[in-house]
Amino acid sequence: MKIRRSTSAAVAATALLASCAGAPPEPLSAPTAFVPPADVADAIRVHALRTGGTWRLLEELCTTAPTRLSGSPGAERAVAWSVEAMRAAGLENVRLEPCTVPYWERGDVGEVVVVEPAEARGERLAMLALGGSVATPSDGLEADVVLVQSFAELSERADEVRGKLVLHGRPMDPTVSPFEAYGGAVAQRSRGAVEAARAGAVGSLCRSLSLATDDVPHTGGMRYDDGVPRIPSAALSTLATDRIAGWLAEGRRVRLAWRQNPRWREPVPSFNVVGELVGREQPEEIIVLGGHLDSWDVGQGAHDDAAGCVQTLEAVRLLKELELRPRRTLRVVFFMNEENGLAGGRAYREQHADEMGQHVLAIESDRGAYTPRGFTTNANAAALSALRAAVAPLAAFGADRVLPGGGGADISPMGPDGVVLVGYLPDPQRYFDLHHTAADTLDRVHPRELELGTVAIATLAWAVAEAPSALPRNP
Amino acid sequence: MKIRRSTSAAVAATALLASCAGAPPEPLSAPTAFVPPADVADAIRVHALRTGGTWRLLEELCTTAPTRLSGSPGAERAVAWSVEAMRAAGLENVRLEPCTVPYWERGDVGEVVVVEPAEARGERLAMLALGGSVATPSDGLEADVVLVQSFAELSERADEVRGKLVLHGRPMDPTVSPFEAYGGAVAQRSRGAVEAARAGAVGSLCRSLSLATDDVPHTGGMRYDDGVPRIPSAALSTLATDRIAGWLAEGRRVRLAWRQNPRWREPVPSFNVVGELVGREQPEEIIVLGGHLDSWDVGQGAHDDAAGCVQTLEAVRLLKELELRPRRTLRVVFFMNEENGLAGGRAYREQHADEMGQHVLAIESDRGAYTPRGFTTNANAAALSALRAAVAPLAAFGADRVLPGGGGADISPMGPDGVVLVGYLPDPQRYFDLHHTAADTLDRVHPRELELGTVAIATLAWAVAEAPSALPRNP
Repeated sequence: MKIRRSTSAAVAATALLASCAGAPPEPLSAPTAFVPPADVADAIRVHALRTGGTWRLLEELCTTAPTRLSGSPGAERAVAWSVEAMRAAGLENVRLEPCTVPYWERGDVGEVVVVEPAEARGERLAMLALGGSVATPSDGLEADVVLVQSFAELSERADEVRGKLVLHGRPMDPTVSPFEAYGGAVAQRSRGAVEAARAGAVGSLCRSLSLATDDVPHTGGMRYDDGVPRIPSAALSTLATDRIAGWLAEGRRVRLAWRQNPRWREPVPSFNVVGELVGREQPEEIIVLGGHLDSWDVGQGAHDDAAGCVQTLEAVRLLKELELRPRRTLRVVFFMNEENGLAGGRAYREQHADEMGQHVLAIESDRGAYTPRGFTTNANAAALSALRAAVAPLAAFGADRVLPGGGGADISPMGPDGVVLVGYLPDPQRYFDLHHTAADTLDRVHPRELELGTVAIATLAWAVAEAPSALPRNP
Repeated sequence: MKIRRSTSAAVAATALLASCAGAPPEPLSAPTAFVPPADVADAIRVHALRTGGTWRLLEELCTTAPTRLSGSPGAERAVAWSVEAMRAAGLENVRLEPCTVPYWERGDVGEVVVVEPAEARGERLAMLALGGSVATPSDGLEADVVLVQSFAELSERADEVRGKLVLHGRPMDPTVSPFEAYGGAVAQRSRGAVEAARAGAVGSLCRSLSLATDDVPHTGGMRYDDGVPRIPSAALSTLATDRIAGWLAEGRRVRLAWRQNPRWREPVPSFNVVGELVGREQPEEIIVLGGHLDSWDVGQGAHDDAAGCVQTLEAVRLLKELELRPRRTLRVVFFMNEENGLAGGRAYREQHADEMGQHVLAIESDRGAYTPRGFTTNANAAALSALRAAVAPLAAFGADRVLPGGGGADISPMGPDGVVLVGYLPDPQRYFDLHHTAADTLDRVHPRELELGTVAIATLAWAVAEAPSALPRNP
């Protein structure tokens, strides 16, 4: 399907003429040169919403490879699917780019059972081992629980903690934005075991990083430090945490029996999956867009981050179908191993080190598939103006905000090279209800919201890839 | 709970001083005078998100009176609950204001059964009688179906239609905003029966006004014209409509047997429910905020419009709890009979005709309880600037858009008096999945999204009620 449209040269000239009316001429790098013509922006939106292709891709990926933890057979299936999907979408230069990933397995045992208080003895608390955790002894670990709200409190109460289980129980702050709240609480998950072990604890539990009060535990990455004992670590659901907090507030002793058997296996060869729509005039200049193909090993990783992958693929597929091949190259990258290592993001940067100077922009979608609000970026002032111009047509559905912020973990290794990084910004209110849980499934994604994200990404990517001059690089 | 804050006089002076830095002084009516101080805006957001009071009110209303169609016992229960809830919230001058409402009842029979094609004979199609429709003959109505995409097509095919059932089958346009798509399709529901009867049809069906493809039928209001035969009217689910369209596209005859027994009863005395936070300095100047208390007779009307009512009540309750009694009076109005008559909105305007000159602003929340995006308004340019200043703090969660548009059906009768009307604007993408259906239930409302709407409404209402000068009226 081809849309009738003025040539980009004519568009640039029109923008230039418009800017001349009563004002001195502006150079072609001025933001107006980045505004997509209305017919292009309309064509992208109308075609996407009419055909709904992103949902079909999401359904395929989530059913073909519902869990995709790095190193696992699921991740391998996802790589194979991605190659076929990129080919079917008509992308060029479809290829695998190698990276070696860590391989952690959850195992088949995971339970936390109440020992005290007596009247709750035998009750199981909803839990998930944290990604990277070691196992408990095979006959389990039984100990009393000390609940702390912060690492500072943990230090102060170090005497009480020896030989116990520490429960890091500070809730996410509901009064700030969900991502800010996550940032303010995530150290309990990622560093909780190290801090607890330093104080002499034998195990580290944390309150699930969720804004919901429910019995759905949230996994996620954690790490150990050299020289600090490696103690088991798991998340409890928010309800289970609140239950324990209630018992402790009543002065009751809380004692738990905990068994889990995750293990680290040998690193595994894996891949980023890459495909392109080669640029019409300056093919050596590259706009990267992508998400991460790996996920945790529960649910389907539908929002995190199957959605981000298929949005960027569909964005480029749409442009190709509309015969909107831009001046520069659009390169779709499905990164491997964002969740527990970032091997894919690092490998991409290393393998393309020579090309970094020609990387004009990198866009990542990894904040869920809710209604688009805009983008965040590390862009300098000049590039920020250009990006704002590029997304102007998205005001039609309120997705035209470009705010300072990060681009995304996978593309972050390119930041020091001066590549402008952009992160897709959907509505954040529901994301931490299901992030890293068994509830992150296809049915929690709204087809129209998902598709509008594709529209936003396609519009921005096209505008920057087509602009007469390149986006100003970061210093 | 009282927040520490500068007095409003000091705030106004600060705003004035700020505006003087390097620029001529501005009058107090300038938009800066409408910007809520940061401590007030923060206190409203933090207190609301921490306490989550809107959800508790919503749960109460939806479980006390799950259906609230005008004239029904459910509506009566909702009125009684509202009086108690306003009193419990500490509102002043809580009262019932009378209005007489039409009373339509769905009855206990409603079915559309396939007669042809033969292989589907006996299958029931998901349907709901439209609000206001007459019954079929008690032994049913059996006729062939003619599918039309527009009233123009209906006119052209008038010869085929006589003695048949017309199915108005044009889908909502997925490529525009959901409310625009609804506006472009709703005449099929509201006027379909009149147009079909004029062409000689014996019944009028319409495709549910939904952007989802599912088996959930959507009811809603329809009307008859004097002098045109009153034929039965119902909505089919989008799936049922698509099924019929598929058969017809294959050249098959489609014949349906339809029975429904709704009826009009005598009009019933009912009420708007009103309560106030009386203004501290200019109590005679009034900001109205509200939603409609009635709903359709399926589901719980959770989004439409229990949420709107409880958001406005909680907004005022919050301000009272924070000891933020503003200069002007905040008046919460739960309007009756928005869905099938607007008797409450009209009665309010009539009963307060003398006060219209002191109505500074009216805010309605009636577009669902999704994440706030901002507001729409009929405001003149000066008032628009002031409103934009008033919602500036909502940029923190992307709810600071003030766009031209309507305020809401219930407050619309005040428009000709020059009252500035504002409609709360949440994210619209999911609303027409469940509008007027059995699926519009409590579990489809997200507590945090609901609460953020309360924050947006409270902030705007407070800013306008507290501003040193009144919002400029419309001409």
